[in-house]
Amino acid sequence: MPIYTCTIAESTFSAETKRALAGEIARIHSSITHVPSAYVNVAFHELAADGLYTDGVPASPVLVAGWVREGHPADDTTRLATEVSTAVAKICEIDVERVLVVIQPSPARFAVEGGRVLPEPGQEQAWLAES
Amino acid sequence: MPIYTCTIAESTFSAETKRALAGEIARIHSSITHVPSAYVNVAFHELAADGLYTDGVPASPVLVAGWVREGHPADDTTRLATEVSTAVAKICEIDVERVLVVIQPSPARFAVEGGRVLPEPGQEQAWLAES
Amino acid sequence: MPIYTCTIAESTFSAETKRALAGEIARIHSSITHVPSAYVNVAFHELAADGLYTDGVPASPVLVAGWVREGHPADDTTRLATEVSTAVAKICEIDVERVLVVIQPSPARFAVEGGRVLPEPGQEQAWLAES
Repeated sequence: MPIYTCTIAESTFSAETKRALAGEIARIHSSITHVPSAYVNVAFHELAADGLYTDGVPASPVLVAGWVREGHPADDTTRLATEVSTAVAKICEIDVERVLVVIQPSPARFAVEGGRVLPEPGQEQAWLAES
Repeated sequence: MPIYTCTIAESTFSAETKRALAGEIARIHSSITHVPSAYVNVAFHELAADGLYTDGVPASPVLVAGWVREGHPADDTTRLATEVSTAVAKICEIDVERVLVVIQPSPARFAVEGGRVLPEPGQEQAWLAES
Repeated sequence: MPIYTCTIAESTFSAETKRALAGEIARIHSSITHVPSAYVNVAFHELAADGLYTDGVPASPVLVAGWVREGHPADDTTRLATEVSTAVAKICEIDVERVLVVIQPSPARFAVEGGRVLPEPGQEQAWLAES
């Protein structure tokens, strides 16, 4: 259901690091939203050295944008962003100052997976049972 | 006006498939939102094999995120996501289980194309007439 | 705080152009939202020639999507999109008809930077003072 997109400068993370981070994001998302980790997607966009800027100069922030279904309790969404931020810093062994995590929700009824409209938060069980 | 972003593992789709899918998304968007297909943008982000994960393991979902102007009837937006999902499975000849389509609207007045602020849904004709 | 993502066909902009545009976007964002330019991120996604379509045919629009904190005055957000659009056309020396800028806000409390939840618009000073 969710899509987490990590934008980084190329060669910032090894394949092992990316895999470990993807696994940890899946675990965090699942634990907070009650969606099985099997539904958590993580994509890494690795940009050329002249493709990423902060304050107009080349930089290497780690930018994570997550799409989730709208309607989770706001505190849970804040916790999601916080825990993902902590995971990035720890697993990737970078200063948390370089990490920006942003959650961008939109309505579940505006999303389709496996041919079916996604369930509203809290109504996952019936949807999953039909899978 | 809209931007559809398809994130896939590299070499998943041929150039012909991408072009056909871009055309079908343009047709679907135009038929539902009454915007000429000439305004429909589709971008393909093709990631390295170690750039895309589901459940913490390398995977090859087809992730489509669409930006559209806020304010279309909700049912139309659901239909947009459903029809794009169906089109991806059919044109790309993949199992619909691999396809996730997400529509993320924001206000038309927060978007500028051709130097002009975009029209609210339902007010396209006057805007287009001035083009 | 904000993330501006520019999606373009590869080789559309030189490294110098990208850097100049990133600097100008940082300046514009800072002047309108009262956030220091040091917090403005700009990422360039450069796609292969068969990766970008308008109306179902290969094309070379310049697509800019900006994430900002929700709650800025709507007029300011419109101005942000307008000024970024003008900057792209001028700095990149392209027809403004090719430029689409979209701002997609979500709540500040859904975003974490440097380990801290971002401040609501208007409450930046206290947040910055703690940095």
